[in-house]
Amino acid sequence: METALFTANNIWMMICTGLVFFMHLGFSFLEIGLTRQKNTVNILFKNIFIITVGLLLYYIGGFNLMYPGFEEGDFGFFKFAGFGIAAPEGGMTPEYASGGYTWWTDFLFQGMFAATAATIVSGAVAERIKLQSFFLFTIIYVGLVYPIVGSWQWGGGFLSSLSYGEAEGFYDFAGSTLVHSVGGWAALIAVYLLGPRIGKYTEDGKANAIPGHSLPFTTAGVLILWLGWFGFNGGSVLSADPELTSLTLVTTSLAAAAGGVSAFIVSYLKFKNFDLTMFLNGILGGLVSITAGADQMSPNEAVVIGLLGGVILVFAVSLLDKLLLDDPVGAIAVHLITGIWGTLAVGIFGAMASFDQFVVQLAGVGAAGVFCSVCGFIILFVIKKTMGLRVPRKEELEGLDIHEHGMDAYPDFRLNQH
Amino acid sequence: METALFTANNIWMMICTGLVFFMHLGFSFLEIGLTRQKNTVNILFKNIFIITVGLLLYYIGGFNLMYPGFEEGDFGFFKFAGFGIAAPEGGMTPEYASGGYTWWTDFLFQGMFAATAATIVSGAVAERIKLQSFFLFTIIYVGLVYPIVGSWQWGGGFLSSLSYGEAEGFYDFAGSTLVHSVGGWAALIAVYLLGPRIGKYTEDGKANAIPGHSLPFTTAGVLILWLGWFGFNGGSVLSADPELTSLTLVTTSLAAAAGGVSAFIVSYLKFKNFDLTMFLNGILGGLVSITAGADQMSPNEAVVIGLLGGVILVFAVSLLDKLLLDDPVGAIAVHLITGIWGTLAVGIFGAMASFDQFVVQLAGVGAAGVFCSVCGFIILFVIKKTMGLRVPRKEELEGLDIHEHGMDAYPDFRLNQH
Amino acid sequence: METALFTANNIWMMICTGLVFFMHLGFSFLEIGLTRQKNTVNILFKNIFIITVGLLLYYIGGFNLMYPGFEEGDFGFFKFAGFGIAAPEGGMTPEYASGGYTWWTDFLFQGMFAATAATIVSGAVAERIKLQSFFLFTIIYVGLVYPIVGSWQWGGGFLSSLSYGEAEGFYDFAGSTLVHSVGGWAALIAVYLLGPRIGKYTEDGKANAIPGHSLPFTTAGVLILWLGWFGFNGGSVLSADPELTSLTLVTTSLAAAAGGVSAFIVSYLKFKNFDLTMFLNGILGGLVSITAGADQMSPNEAVVIGLLGGVILVFAVSLLDKLLLDDPVGAIAVHLITGIWGTLAVGIFGAMASFDQFVVQLAGVGAAGVFCSVCGFIILFVIKKTMGLRVPRKEELEGLDIHEHGMDAYPDFRLNQH
Repeated sequence: METALFTANNIWMMICTGLVFFMHLGFSFLEIGLTRQKNTVNILFKNIFIITVGLLLYYIGGFNLMYPGFEEGDFGFFKFAGFGIAAPEGGMTPEYASGGYTWWTDFLFQGMFAATAATIVSGAVAERIKLQSFFLFTIIYVGLVYPIVGSWQWGGGFLSSLSYGEAEGFYDFAGSTLVHSVGGWAALIAVYLLGPRIGKYTEDGKANAIPGHSLPFTTAGVLILWLGWFGFNGGSVLSADPELTSLTLVTTSLAAAAGGVSAFIVSYLKFKNFDLTMFLNGILGGLVSITAGADQMSPNEAVVIGLLGGVILVFAVSLLDKLLLDDPVGAIAVHLITGIWGTLAVGIFGAMASFDQFVVQLAGVGAAGVFCSVCGFIILFVIKKTMGLRVPRKEELEGLDIHEHGMDAYPDFRLNQH
Repeated sequence: METALFTANNIWMMICTGLVFFMHLGFSFLEIGLTRQKNTVNILFKNIFIITVGLLLYYIGGFNLMYPGFEEGDFGFFKFAGFGIAAPEGGMTPEYASGGYTWWTDFLFQGMFAATAATIVSGAVAERIKLQSFFLFTIIYVGLVYPIVGSWQWGGGFLSSLSYGEAEGFYDFAGSTLVHSVGGWAALIAVYLLGPRIGKYTEDGKANAIPGHSLPFTTAGVLILWLGWFGFNGGSVLSADPELTSLTLVTTSLAAAAGGVSAFIVSYLKFKNFDLTMFLNGILGGLVSITAGADQMSPNEAVVIGLLGGVILVFAVSLLDKLLLDDPVGAIAVHLITGIWGTLAVGIFGAMASFDQFVVQLAGVGAAGVFCSVCGFIILFVIKKTMGLRVPRKEELEGLDIHEHGMDAYPDFRLNQH
Repeated sequence: METALFTANNIWMMICTGLVFFMHLGFSFLEIGLTRQKNTVNILFKNIFIITVGLLLYYIGGFNLMYPGFEEGDFGFFKFAGFGIAAPEGGMTPEYASGGYTWWTDFLFQGMFAATAATIVSGAVAERIKLQSFFLFTIIYVGLVYPIVGSWQWGGGFLSSLSYGEAEGFYDFAGSTLVHSVGGWAALIAVYLLGPRIGKYTEDGKANAIPGHSLPFTTAGVLILWLGWFGFNGGSVLSADPELTSLTLVTTSLAAAAGGVSAFIVSYLKFKNFDLTMFLNGILGGLVSITAGADQMSPNEAVVIGLLGGVILVFAVSLLDKLLLDDPVGAIAVHLITGIWGTLAVGIFGAMASFDQFVVQLAGVGAAGVFCSVCGFIILFVIKKTMGLRVPRKEELEGLDIHEHGMDAYPDFRLNQH
């Protein structure tokens, strides 16, 4: 491959890396906006922990664990070329990764992905999880579980060659299952083990709304996430191929728009008001829905997948509340439920659609689900029985910010007196 | 054209698409910052509506309406390649659009533009328009009026070949007229039909300041819009041509800086204080001013156009207040008045400057103005007489958030008590 | 060089330009978040002033001052190709700058850098400096001091050829010294001449915490700055060379993550709480630390440099407080102290490490330090003795917003009453 095309490909992948990084601001804004002010510093601290520690863990071992053996004897930790700047043989040339990017770009792009899985959990367990327990969970889950599941497919493992009838291999383009539901399953288990926030459900199982503290931040978060998805899905092409990247951006944006609109309409019909939160979560539902097949769908199919994703989302949010699963930001509905929907949609719509493929997609969903749930349960259960998962009642009532961090999010904020 | 150059061009256009998308966060922040807290959810809802519904409308029909006939028999709705992923013949090759981008990129870039026209209106009518009335207006205006006006020039219609003397064709590089004043004219008509907010003008016609609720959001909005303009103008080159794209970014940024500085100085001389809002609106005025000729001006000319844009802006804001036209965010001054200025400036400065060109520019401004005003008036007048345009007095006083959405923007916000 | 590669390079440099521009939103958010609400408009106004006026100053003369003589007789002001759009001979071709970018891109990228130096000062002097005095200082410092120091190295001046033993030339990849400590030295001098904010230190020299007003803004600011550093360091490669750009993003991100984690751990050990502000400043410390040698380090070395940068930062913050140097946002610790560390680290780690290089790095740090301190002192001392540097006591107590700008940052903000 000529240098110019290699350079262009690598530029695209670096930009996408930056956009996926930027999603961490989106998640932070989304989560603090939907939760109470007294827990804001805590949530921000967790998000900053995830992006810094997550990246370092991926550097220490995750990258190798997820993409083993592309070079002989290359397993191990801290493998990044010793203390010289020598790069691995061929890792900086078009021979690597079909000329789509360099080895460094590969690491960084994948490292940014790794951190997102933990961020998904962060939102669901907000306002009541112990900080150190969350740290420990994140380290194990991002450091081990995420790269192991990822290796099954993107590392060339068994899912990538799972065949059934005429279907050859599970397909998950950018991670409806491998990223979003990996985070979503852990969120589900964590919410189950943690229990709902104080005051969320009445004794007879009715849900009380616990409004957050800033819808402008939530809205900004969702728009930033949508932009970040340009990189999340657009970069998953693994080159700047003009047709595939641009198709991916079109399907991604149309599914986002369609998911928002259907969630807004369904929630209007259901609740008779214009619910901004549902509109925004519908956009995220559309984005997660299209992620597994963003390069396989026509725009028309993307719109249908997004529309259904938005509808599923609204009902999933209600269902989780009926099951007394308290997820302050709707992460389980967005990332797990529409993540499953998006993965299955690859067997229903688009270039790969077939009954056989649907079965393979279902098997992939199941395999990831069982592994993540079991690992998540073991890790979180052990933490619960040893360190404890949940902050004391007094701390939950007064806010985690003051107890765990000794600070308020808006310490000098005051009302205008002029 | 070789693949590498095609790929590079398409990368640039996809990035610009992302940046124009990101402008919707900029508009949202700008608008909520300059308006009262009690209407924040309402404004955010409108902005999210615009970007989602606007994109879907452009997908359903707007794209075709604006760029008709590039392929035989290609009119119609939902034309995006059926339910397979087959792309239109040649649409993914360098043969399409001189190799500047793929057909998918074309659609998405233009779709992001379409939504901005409605966003401009959203700010001007804030704090008093009925939500459903705004929805209906947006659907018609973005779905029909915007693409029709766009087709006159960018779709190869009559404006693009309008000649006078030696001038051959109206010129509007990135949409001072075709986007900004299309939004601006509708904003003007809407503000006229709606009337001012309660309390804005005294009985003897003096304007009261109605301060917004967050200047940090407003400032962030303007900086995000400036960044977004890198894509808005930079992408309007329709390729990554190194000279033209980089010139465009230079003229755009210099005009923004110059517009801000002149507005800040003029408003200081006029009002004797350092008015952040005017500084920020001056930046936007500079940006809109340069948009029509960003690729035709030298940096020196860009600075002059921006400086004058900033001055014009300050006087336009005062003038509108004298006319009792209540525009909470200054959208008419920014997008319509400096949009007209920028369009005319193409006949005064730069490579195309000539008296003949000035006449053609004036004709283009007039044609767009008449069409948009008439269409805008008809749509809004019919809505006013049927559904009504304005919320009831009680709702306006108590805020649209609680009445239309049943929620506050900061429901859990409280002052620090530690 | 072929057109495609030139185009790709230029795209990368334009994106990096946009990212460096976006850092001004990061700085704005960081600074207002860490300071009191009553000074928010003032800080935003200063930041907007810096980016607009800074860019215009660079256009008027800074660019020429910093990069003199690349063309015969090219000194002077307003040199941007008169009022036609003709570009300088060869400036738009691959002959210019080894095909890394066009002359326009060069100007804009460097112009965005110039403004950052002043922004660094802005944070340190916040909450007490007179606005007009800051304006004057900024104009002289950004217009003259910054480009002069820059010319010593990046303009091919004496630092770039300073040799000692086997070391040939000072090395500062992206500006740990040439940007960050240029700002940092001025910040140090300014803080010394201004004195601490009222109430910051007790009579016996103990520091009182003066909490800011919004940690969400501060957190957003740091994440935006991290993203911006993709452009700051990534663009300093001055082309899109796949190996160097991607290595640079990896070292930059790993140093950021490592700096955050070590600052968080050290501050936890020191103060026994999870201090979000220190975590965030640690990230910035890591970023500044790696900036001088981001293209010279392996990822492993980047992690070590970042880790040490985070540790240094925590102790620097304490040290400055002991010296009664009141820096509300930690700018001196972040930009000056870790800037020095990063510059010296080029002599300790990485491809250039040697005792001789260390000596040269030290000499470069010293030269910039002496020049910037002396210039900064003269400018600020003269301003202090003539216009005055500090606002009156009453104004400082009541807030600069109301006195200098006649407005509050959140004029309509109120607590939810529904």
